[in-house]
Amino acid sequence: MIYLDNNATTFLSPTVRSRIGSLIAAPVGNPSSPHRLGQEARALVEKARDQVAAALGAPSECVLFVASGSEANAMAIAAAQTCGGDRDEIIVSAVEHSSVGANAAPLGRSGYVVREAPVVGSGHIDLDRLAGMVNERTAIVSVQSVNNETGVVQPVEAVAEISHRAGALYHCDAAQALGKIPIDVGARHAPDLLSVTAHKIHGPTGCGALYARDLSLLQPLVGGGDQEQGLRGGTENLIGAVGFGAAAAERVRDLAAVTALLAACRDSFEHAVLAAEPGVTVNGDRRHRVGNTSNLRFPDIDGDMLIAALDDRGLYCSQSSACTTARPTPSHVLIAMGLSEPEAYASLRFSFGVLNTQEEAEHAAHCVVDAYRDLVDRLRRIGAA
Amino acid sequence: MIYLDNNATTFLSPTVRSRIGSLIAAPVGNPSSPHRLGQEARALVEKARDQVAAALGAPSECVLFVASGSEANAMAIAAAQTCGGDRDEIIVSAVEHSSVGANAAPLGRSGYVVREAPVVGSGHIDLDRLAGMVNERTAIVSVQSVNNETGVVQPVEAVAEISHRAGALYHCDAAQALGKIPIDVGARHAPDLLSVTAHKIHGPTGCGALYARDLSLLQPLVGGGDQEQGLRGGTENLIGAVGFGAAAAERVRDLAAVTALLAACRDSFEHAVLAAEPGVTVNGDRRHRVGNTSNLRFPDIDGDMLIAALDDRGLYCSQSSACTTARPTPSHVLIAMGLSEPEAYASLRFSFGVLNTQEEAEHAAHCVVDAYRDLVDRLRRIGAA
Repeated sequence: MIYLDNNATTFLSPTVRSRIGSLIAAPVGNPSSPHRLGQEARALVEKARDQVAAALGAPSECVLFVASGSEANAMAIAAAQTCGGDRDEIIVSAVEHSSVGANAAPLGRSGYVVREAPVVGSGHIDLDRLAGMVNERTAIVSVQSVNNETGVVQPVEAVAEISHRAGALYHCDAAQALGKIPIDVGARHAPDLLSVTAHKIHGPTGCGALYARDLSLLQPLVGGGDQEQGLRGGTENLIGAVGFGAAAAERVRDLAAVTALLAACRDSFEHAVLAAEPGVTVNGDRRHRVGNTSNLRFPDIDGDMLIAALDDRGLYCSQSSACTTARPTPSHVLIAMGLSEPEAYASLRFSFGVLNTQEEAEHAAHCVVDAYRDLVDRLRRIGAA
Repeated sequence: MIYLDNNATTFLSPTVRSRIGSLIAAPVGNPSSPHRLGQEARALVEKARDQVAAALGAPSECVLFVASGSEANAMAIAAAQTCGGDRDEIIVSAVEHSSVGANAAPLGRSGYVVREAPVVGSGHIDLDRLAGMVNERTAIVSVQSVNNETGVVQPVEAVAEISHRAGALYHCDAAQALGKIPIDVGARHAPDLLSVTAHKIHGPTGCGALYARDLSLLQPLVGGGDQEQGLRGGTENLIGAVGFGAAAAERVRDLAAVTALLAACRDSFEHAVLAAEPGVTVNGDRRHRVGNTSNLRFPDIDGDMLIAALDDRGLYCSQSSACTTARPTPSHVLIAMGLSEPEAYASLRFSFGVLNTQEEAEHAAHCVVDAYRDLVDRLRRIGAA
């Protein structure tokens, strides 16, 4: 088995697995209970928060644990309602994760205008057009840091500057950026709100985090007890938080080394495929991509068929975001970049994780080339029959 | 250490611990990924859903996984907006968990009237007064199944009948009922919406579930991908769901035996304390209580001091819901039952779990009596000094 779908989810790292293993072996209280066992649980959550906050360059008190990147995005977009003034426009890039648009939609129904900021063919946000859209009516701008399908890195600082110049908030979905490029919300031009999630960096599913420069921008989506500074009710997900903290600490410690290794794997895979099949092309700007993602367009095929053929060979990859796999539509990201529907359907995403090896990368390339040639041959035979 | 705070949270059972241990040892995909590894993850989530649904007597397709009982309550209460007609009143019992009132409050600000249904001194909902409150304006009635502080069991069927007779929805927070009394949403008079959570039955924190008779009553709080039938975005919490499923299956299989054991522990504890200290009284109806909870009022003391003294002796209990511990107010449950503020402050909750033993129950009673007498002596000496 070779797993190249790490942008959908990663496997737990050995460190995270061992940390969760220790946690579940011992009795743990409710972090809100005042007795010793509760206070020990509280310390676990707060240590995890420190670890996640450190990975973002954020003060711990500005980081809330939630259940997913989607929930972080939902709370962030809702800040359009608290940003003050008569601002009634929400600007969302055309290549955001489905949860950004989905959580802007209810605000659209309650009087906000949701506008889509276009990208250019390389997958980058069109900064000139964005600058023309953001004005005194803009409540919030949401532009991701790294695209989940192509790995293209967006100019976060420039987006922050454009947003702030007009007095708008800037939210950045950094789910695919964490652990792949440095994040620093303390930088001069930085997002006001930023979403991350554990399961993209070898932590568990079911735990995300939201950074907010100013917590008064946030309103609870889930009311309840006093958890998360009264902004998110419900007993804390201890396994999730502790796993996220361990994953973040591990990844940030070795960021440069890890990203170099990921890029080496991805590059040797991609070079081998492109060398063997010169008709294959890379979707998205190759220079400004994170090192783990390769989005390839294969001429003359339906990507679904290639995925199935690779699945049979034990190689797992995907066509677009796992979150929208059930929808019978082509990737909205690739369409926004100007690909035709058939071109989008002919594209596959290969995404590497820290548990992949150089040998896997090379073997995967052979496997992809082989399966692709088989498929083209079969299609030709059917066409000729 | 003796842990008698199982209504705040329970420790993982050996079965759940071993199930999570196996899960984290193996590579797991994203349940939304179409490849084999994704489909295996999907099967894990759906098996867990079947297990939780079986514990509620519900069809699996009517059960959604969420992050907490609080989130389930938030989604349930929001059904006031989808129940149809001009209904604009929400009725919430005076002894609900803080998350029910907290999640009704935003609807209150958007035009709904939130009314509180009183309880009688025993802790039971006042059915006559409830019947007088529910009418053609009532959108939803929220009355819990089991109180988290006193263990008092509410007449769920009667509340369902009153609600339905007026055409209102009935939501039942069953977080403290699951695993302590049978739940059957298929009964003749049953809730339309019901909330449960894993960590009260020796499953992990961070995973709740919401049953809805009709999913069209629900709107997403967190939008995003197609997860949970499009009603709750975000990659599924695999550890949480699998742990919840295992805990629910284990508990339902042995429900009668387990509840008998819990009751035996609780009763021997309570009898021993009351026999040694006849001034101590039980809060709430002793006949209609779940078997694991003992809420005791100790004359002439502040409960906080007794909790601290017990903490020093390694016995962990609580004063009210862990979720509201940070608030410097007496238990709203006990106040609603007619206790004075000093009486509420003088009350402690002891709650047993399946990992407690008869020996612990007996030792705990000695410990409580001893600590109480010490405390009263100390207070008398200070008063005399």
